[in-house]
Amino acid sequence: MSMDYLRIALDLAKQGQGRVAPNPSVGAVLVRDGAVVGQGYHTWAGVKHAEVLAIEDAGDQARGATLYINLEPCCHMGRTGPCVEALIAAGVKKVVAIQEDPNPQVAGQGFARLRAAGVEVEIEPSLAEEATDLNLAFFHYMKTGRPLVTLKSALTLDGKIAAPEDNSGWITSERARAHVQQIRHLHDAILTGIDTVLSDDCLLTDRSGLERSRPLLRIVVDSQLRIPLTSKMVQSCQHDLLVVSSSVASPARRHELEKHGVEVLAADGPGGRTDLKKIVQVLGTRKYLSLMIEAGSKVNWSALEYGVADRIFFYYAPKILGGLQSLPVAGGIGKRRRADAIRFTGTKLHVIPPDEFAVEAWLKKS
Amino acid sequence: MSMDYLRIALDLAKQGQGRVAPNPSVGAVLVRDGAVVGQGYHTWAGVKHAEVLAIEDAGDQARGATLYINLEPCCHMGRTGPCVEALIAAGVKKVVAIQEDPNPQVAGQGFARLRAAGVEVEIEPSLAEEATDLNLAFFHYMKTGRPLVTLKSALTLDGKIAAPEDNSGWITSERARAHVQQIRHLHDAILTGIDTVLSDDCLLTDRSGLERSRPLLRIVVDSQLRIPLTSKMVQSCQHDLLVVSSSVASPARRHELEKHGVEVLAADGPGGRTDLKKIVQVLGTRKYLSLMIEAGSKVNWSALEYGVADRIFFYYAPKILGGLQSLPVAGGIGKRRRADAIRFTGTKLHVIPPDEFAVEAWLKKS
Repeated sequence: MSMDYLRIALDLAKQGQGRVAPNPSVGAVLVRDGAVVGQGYHTWAGVKHAEVLAIEDAGDQARGATLYINLEPCCHMGRTGPCVEALIAAGVKKVVAIQEDPNPQVAGQGFARLRAAGVEVEIEPSLAEEATDLNLAFFHYMKTGRPLVTLKSALTLDGKIAAPEDNSGWITSERARAHVQQIRHLHDAILTGIDTVLSDDCLLTDRSGLERSRPLLRIVVDSQLRIPLTSKMVQSCQHDLLVVSSSVASPARRHELEKHGVEVLAADGPGGRTDLKKIVQVLGTRKYLSLMIEAGSKVNWSALEYGVADRIFFYYAPKILGGLQSLPVAGGIGKRRRADAIRFTGTKLHVIPPDEFAVEAWLKKS
Repeated sequence: MSMDYLRIALDLAKQGQGRVAPNPSVGAVLVRDGAVVGQGYHTWAGVKHAEVLAIEDAGDQARGATLYINLEPCCHMGRTGPCVEALIAAGVKKVVAIQEDPNPQVAGQGFARLRAAGVEVEIEPSLAEEATDLNLAFFHYMKTGRPLVTLKSALTLDGKIAAPEDNSGWITSERARAHVQQIRHLHDAILTGIDTVLSDDCLLTDRSGLERSRPLLRIVVDSQLRIPLTSKMVQSCQHDLLVVSSSVASPARRHELEKHGVEVLAADGPGGRTDLKKIVQVLGTRKYLSLMIEAGSKVNWSALEYGVADRIFFYYAPKILGGLQSLPVAGGIGKRRRADAIRFTGTKLHVIPPDEFAVEAWLKKS
């Protein structure tokens, strides 16, 4: 029974996904005498937490009830009051949680405060993997202070992203692209290279149709500020476009872009190239929990080579382009020796019927 | 119950795999009064068929029993007598089979003969997919007269099979390579290019440790007969090595190879290259049911470009090499336009824990 209620809590938490950043997704269920008496899930920052919504939903019935929740209730005063106090005040008898909150402002103190007030606390870790998946970026951010960086690409079975001559049409199917939109929706920021903007005139917006807690921040790596003012990206900018250049880029050009509401940031890296690591650091200080890279051969390679990417999400189409001139998913200089290949772990396969699949895997960092 | 017995028959048939070519894998179970009274599976040509072994196993109890079998019993006199006559003589009452034998010498006539003799025949197609998988090459051969050609490769997630400088070590894990050995064991012939022989000095033998009905035929595509007499391939040759050259190759060289027991075959193709299609045709006339290609970038591309490959079996290692100079799984000229990419269908993923996987897919032929 306990597991069933925790599963309901997880399902509730999922409903908040994409609408909680920079907070974690949390779902809560209150149960009394074997019946669900209250439910709630968190949406965006400032709005009431899942626990409080469940208490309000239960009304008087919260007294003596057991709370099932995926994450430890908070004990600090943030934009909302501490949930542990609300639970104690409502007379909740017991709390069953899957995971401790990794936020150093909580980290077990929520459980301690509950116990001190006579509330029984039980940790049920058997759904921990699923609970972690739900808040991957949040856990990563709490551990590292940086957003979780996912390198996404659509490629052929032989690792190609572009043919030498004509690249009209898509590599993957509509179904695979809808899958990408779902993943994109869960991200706080998205990054591409100027080459991709110039060749595709892409928008890089969240077109999932789902509500967000804040706009998807679009980032273009463009050391010489070549992005056209007439590009879809600049034209659609609503304080959600960041262009990252080098410090030698034209100040006049910078000024023009800023007039269009574009933020321009200089991040000099080795060899006159833009430093992806610096961008990720800046995003961290701005509380961006997740970044998706959807770029071309060169930026992809940089993200892998410098260990900026934490995870890859490769969508394979059931196709082969062949040849030495098609563009590979990761270009640049590449590794010279087989033994030096960049390695991945935690491979997960996502089947996209009828004939496609995505590979999710984590970069092994040395 | 019927399904349970058919599943036993399939399991028995599997035990013959790799030991039946050019025959199909067949398993048979005799059941009387709800008890299994006899079992058998086919091994290699000339040895008794599964039905006959099951009858012998059952003895007197075959009378009045029901036979469960994956494939229609044969009605023609081959190297063994027709099974239908043995079944009738043994007094078998009923035959439940999954599939009709596609061999034009049988093709429903086995069932017809049984019915004419008063034996009840039932076709139970619900396990047909599994039964077809068991005899893929046999079905393909019966339909086309050519062996089923599988292009196998081990590659990185970005489609590379070799780094520019140093390729010591394996791409995939020992576990993935053991999986390849299993697949190789099921093949009648294996083909590679001279470049692979020269760079790897490979053996290309069946090292599964499992019994075979006939030696694995090793084939090297070598238009100019450059294969060294000191190579492991030539040195280990026991009338199981076929070198395919062009007609302009040196007759003296040919003679030397022949002295080592190597068969040399000329198969001229377009542009002075060896014609893979001709090789496949020759194998067909020699009753080779299956061919596996384990080669380099160029031969792989030829096999794809000319539609010689029916199926790919790609083993992906959790690695990325990157760069424009690493060798792709399919080289050659490649397709110039994205829309012209070679397409696949029937994608099947094989998980190889912890972090690898293989993609099995079928070439869409136009």
